[in-house]
Amino acid sequence: MAHLGARLTRIAPGSVHITLPNRPEVTQQHGYFHAGATSAIADSAGGYAAYTLFPDGTDVLTVEYKINLLSPAVGDHLEAVGTVLKAGRTLTVCRLEVFGVQDGRSKLVANGQQTLIRVDRT
Amino acid sequence: MAHLGARLTRIAPGSVHITLPNRPEVTQQHGYFHAGATSAIADSAGGYAAYTLFPDGTDVLTVEYKINLLSPAVGDHLEAVGTVLKAGRTLTVCRLEVFGVQDGRSKLVANGQQTLIRVDRT
Amino acid sequence: MAHLGARLTRIAPGSVHITLPNRPEVTQQHGYFHAGATSAIADSAGGYAAYTLFPDGTDVLTVEYKINLLSPAVGDHLEAVGTVLKAGRTLTVCRLEVFGVQDGRSKLVANGQQTLIRVDRT
Amino acid sequence: MAHLGARLTRIAPGSVHITLPNRPEVTQQHGYFHAGATSAIADSAGGYAAYTLFPDGTDVLTVEYKINLLSPAVGDHLEAVGTVLKAGRTLTVCRLEVFGVQDGRSKLVANGQQTLIRVDRT
Repeated sequence: MAHLGARLTRIAPGSVHITLPNRPEVTQQHGYFHAGATSAIADSAGGYAAYTLFPDGTDVLTVEYKINLLSPAVGDHLEAVGTVLKAGRTLTVCRLEVFGVQDGRSKLVANGQQTLIRVDRT
Repeated sequence: MAHLGARLTRIAPGSVHITLPNRPEVTQQHGYFHAGATSAIADSAGGYAAYTLFPDGTDVLTVEYKINLLSPAVGDHLEAVGTVLKAGRTLTVCRLEVFGVQDGRSKLVANGQQTLIRVDRT
Repeated sequence: MAHLGARLTRIAPGSVHITLPNRPEVTQQHGYFHAGATSAIADSAGGYAAYTLFPDGTDVLTVEYKINLLSPAVGDHLEAVGTVLKAGRTLTVCRLEVFGVQDGRSKLVANGQQTLIRVDRT
Repeated sequence: MAHLGARLTRIAPGSVHITLPNRPEVTQQHGYFHAGATSAIADSAGGYAAYTLFPDGTDVLTVEYKINLLSPAVGDHLEAVGTVLKAGRTLTVCRLEVFGVQDGRSKLVANGQQTLIRVDRT
């Protein structure tokens, strides 16, 4: 995440926001954010959202996710939102949303769903 | 759908509800609804939700969907909700939710995401 | 499954085939198999494939699956194949394939991927 | 891709391999490849595999993908394989596999499925 220039901008129980500023390293020729960057912050936002609900001494791993890239990811930054839909003892399921934000106006550019597993920290 | 005993209970632009009563044909030994029935009404709710936004003379096909079965699907009926997230000229993406409803109380039992394509009616 | 008229036709460690004959209950006006029936036998084939690798006293639950409906599901029967890709202590991941079979010739009509969890039988 | 250090190592009709060497920029504290890097090369391998079958003057966009992260992504390099399962006029569906390769031995570390759309180049 740090490598991409992303940062956590909101943390609440079961909900995390990650912001990724528009920089050459994460965009392609037309100024769109790379699908890889969009997906990476979505996956991370879900992982952190799940983690907010986990007890001490545990860790989170992504089991799988699915993401639809709905529109070109444009904007001065992207905002990924991970939201826990179901928190289980073993598995947690999150909704993933990524918004392209330009001049304070948001547009949904990607939407996904993710399954995570809680593991004991080693 | 008719074969399962399901019926459309709410139709609005980009949003459709389908209700499936608890019957022996769609439940298993413990009284839970079959995953197959849960998925089928979710897929149909999304398909109809997309279709509400399509022009005359077109039809809808499911390209793919992904569904998480979050909890045992119990209740006197299931309610599937399909909601259009992105309506494109060719492709439409829907959110799929299935609730188990018992005595008027709802619980999310499955959550999914679906891609549909608009085709000219033949 | 019995309700649909499906039956297990091949069982090996980590691999299960399910056959669904073409019958009015599982097809629509044009003679195509319903997407719901196609998905249901795919999900079941994966579930049984995982189950072949589980120890006594355990059971299998589908966590989630994703399926692409590639082509109209036509044929005198469908054949669903579930194949274990990764067998873990807690989670198992399967590949799901459904073929439309007409006069002994097979065509891939749906392809999917599924995550399952092993639970102690209650 | 170039930013990650990945390169195309095999191109055939409907099949593309991408290799990603183990470097600090794409790995985390334990030396595992980041899930984001694993997913990015899988998505790209599928995109290029679809593209090998497209006519001149067209381009490829990822509609959606789903990926299971099966095992820790370790090795001296990762190899992503994209394989076209169904090539349609509008939509193409690919299988995505990522192997961790250590001293010439391969292990499947991620498996996915992807839908792509062909668009006219603008």
